[in-house]
Amino acid sequence: MYQERIQRILAYMQKEGIDVALITLPKHVYYLTGFLTEPHERFMGLVIPAAGEPSLIVPALDRSAAAEASAMKNILTHTDTDNPYDVLKNALPPGLKTLGLEKSHMTVDRFEAMSAQIAAESYVDVEEPLREMRLIKSADEVERMKHAVKLVEAALDAVVKSLKPGVTEAEVVADLEYQMKRLGAEGPSFSTMVLAGEKSALPHGKPGSREVREGELLLFDLGVLADGYVSDITRTFAVGEISEQLRDIYETVLAANEAAIAEVRPGVTLAHLDQTARRVISDKGYGEYFIHRLGHGLGMDVHEYPSVHGQNQDTLRPGMVFTIEPGVYVPGVGGVRIEDDILVTADGCEVLTQYPKQLQVIGK
Amino acid sequence: MYQERIQRILAYMQKEGIDVALITLPKHVYYLTGFLTEPHERFMGLVIPAAGEPSLIVPALDRSAAAEASAMKNILTHTDTDNPYDVLKNALPPGLKTLGLEKSHMTVDRFEAMSAQIAAESYVDVEEPLREMRLIKSADEVERMKHAVKLVEAALDAVVKSLKPGVTEAEVVADLEYQMKRLGAEGPSFSTMVLAGEKSALPHGKPGSREVREGELLLFDLGVLADGYVSDITRTFAVGEISEQLRDIYETVLAANEAAIAEVRPGVTLAHLDQTARRVISDKGYGEYFIHRLGHGLGMDVHEYPSVHGQNQDTLRPGMVFTIEPGVYVPGVGGVRIEDDILVTADGCEVLTQYPKQLQVIGK
Repeated sequence: MYQERIQRILAYMQKEGIDVALITLPKHVYYLTGFLTEPHERFMGLVIPAAGEPSLIVPALDRSAAAEASAMKNILTHTDTDNPYDVLKNALPPGLKTLGLEKSHMTVDRFEAMSAQIAAESYVDVEEPLREMRLIKSADEVERMKHAVKLVEAALDAVVKSLKPGVTEAEVVADLEYQMKRLGAEGPSFSTMVLAGEKSALPHGKPGSREVREGELLLFDLGVLADGYVSDITRTFAVGEISEQLRDIYETVLAANEAAIAEVRPGVTLAHLDQTARRVISDKGYGEYFIHRLGHGLGMDVHEYPSVHGQNQDTLRPGMVFTIEPGVYVPGVGGVRIEDDILVTADGCEVLTQYPKQLQVIGK
Repeated sequence: MYQERIQRILAYMQKEGIDVALITLPKHVYYLTGFLTEPHERFMGLVIPAAGEPSLIVPALDRSAAAEASAMKNILTHTDTDNPYDVLKNALPPGLKTLGLEKSHMTVDRFEAMSAQIAAESYVDVEEPLREMRLIKSADEVERMKHAVKLVEAALDAVVKSLKPGVTEAEVVADLEYQMKRLGAEGPSFSTMVLAGEKSALPHGKPGSREVREGELLLFDLGVLADGYVSDITRTFAVGEISEQLRDIYETVLAANEAAIAEVRPGVTLAHLDQTARRVISDKGYGEYFIHRLGHGLGMDVHEYPSVHGQNQDTLRPGMVFTIEPGVYVPGVGGVRIEDDILVTADGCEVLTQYPKQLQVIGK
């Protein structure tokens, strides 16, 4: 698997005339070697020359972890008193012309320190093949994402079952994150959101001391990080009996969610999905209250390619994973969002999130 | 307060001949304006010209939050379809020669996109005055840090009181982070560490399914983030009765912690603190088991200036905050670390962490 991914980088390097690729984003080093670490201020880099074996440069204290987690034959190290760019220089072929790097990750000070030492003739971006590969998930990646979905759904289920009116949003958040950790997740993949009553109408609201009360909506948006991959799910519940208006909003959003999912198959544009959901909501008169894009890609990051919005004419391909999360937010009244994680398959899609979507009354 | 901080940047700019400073690190924008946000992939920047009013450029959806949180008169916005560097260009004085930026934060791709648009003659680093200011905490910052300490100590206390043998390290971590959130912290300031028995001897160990057992040590290293500032504390407990050897290690580390703290006052070197603690430990025969520096600076980041190690000849100044955390780690036997957060005052120090340090037997 890692070999194959590195081959893809090599093919890109050959096409673009890049002599060496230097990969420093920890997620990308993980993606290409299996070794996941956060080196903080210390230097870590995977050196992929156009010809010859790649090598991995890590802080000395990470050597054994890197050797254990990856199949890398060449692991080079530096201590806190070494200049890591000296080590890098020694790992590079002589007469280096073009170095490929991740320009969206490398900082200006690191670039200056590195280029002072290694002095290539030119520096170009090498992220395109990584973006392209990450866009299409492998079976292994799908398994990891399913695991992350399973964990977040179990956490949500445990909390929803025992929830009683009177608890605050912040307490529910604390409880959810406790459950995530207890179940074995590394932690939340983003700030867990629990919004009660009129606050559910704020797509960027912040959970606080607002109490959960009967007769209101309660919106949950949460995900976990596990084995380097994330999940992301939104469900909205009725706490006790709710008004006809809120029920109507709920059914509208659910219909939009299902209509968009029904359209997912290879060849369809991302714009079409957004437009499909938006039409259902507009037809019910709530068009002005659906104020964000339909969804976003998901994988090692909680927001990655593709963006599911009305202008994106890119077409769906098997292996893409993204969210479908229509919402209707009526200020002062309440908001509903229903979000699923979707995998595009050869002839349609698989909905990774399995948590029920019919309106549930909780807090009884 | 913010005015005064911006004045310090202006003084540095004048000294270095910088025409405009562009501040983009969210923590620094917070430090200089009071507005804290994480704009992710969107551009945010505080523009400080050598003459005239500063302006703050934020994504359009953050305008009202920025206006509310800061006293900035000029707030400029960009939408997702704007080129934010056009907005930046319009905020700059004509004929810009030297732009100051945070080279350890700005990425190469952003730098390229920005410099293509604004084309200054030179780009220099402007982080020095920020580092210098952040090193000496204001009364306001000390209050925030005390609050973060109070929250983490309350979380630790709640968990320690009810802890029973048989629970796993990971369960204790989940419980601690639940308490942090419940008490109002934004979350942990780093991965909460709970290590039982022989695992307490691993300074970089990872909490897992290892159970807490009687007759062993239990090491806690944790902190919270609240209002933009962090705390960081380590305490080690005895679960039931422990051996004489473990007690001896504990008393040695405690003596080292107290000896170093007793030396804290303006004018003393950071090296002297490290050496003081190290001597106490060496004299008891555990020198080879104290395998890390004595401590690190603390503030908006959990590791910042100054570094408290044996070669750092910088001297203490009132307002510095750092940790003092000697440790002894005997492989296969157990480890003890005792960590406090220390504020240097005019004539000595204030220990911000108040949690008791005498050996406590828990889990009864």
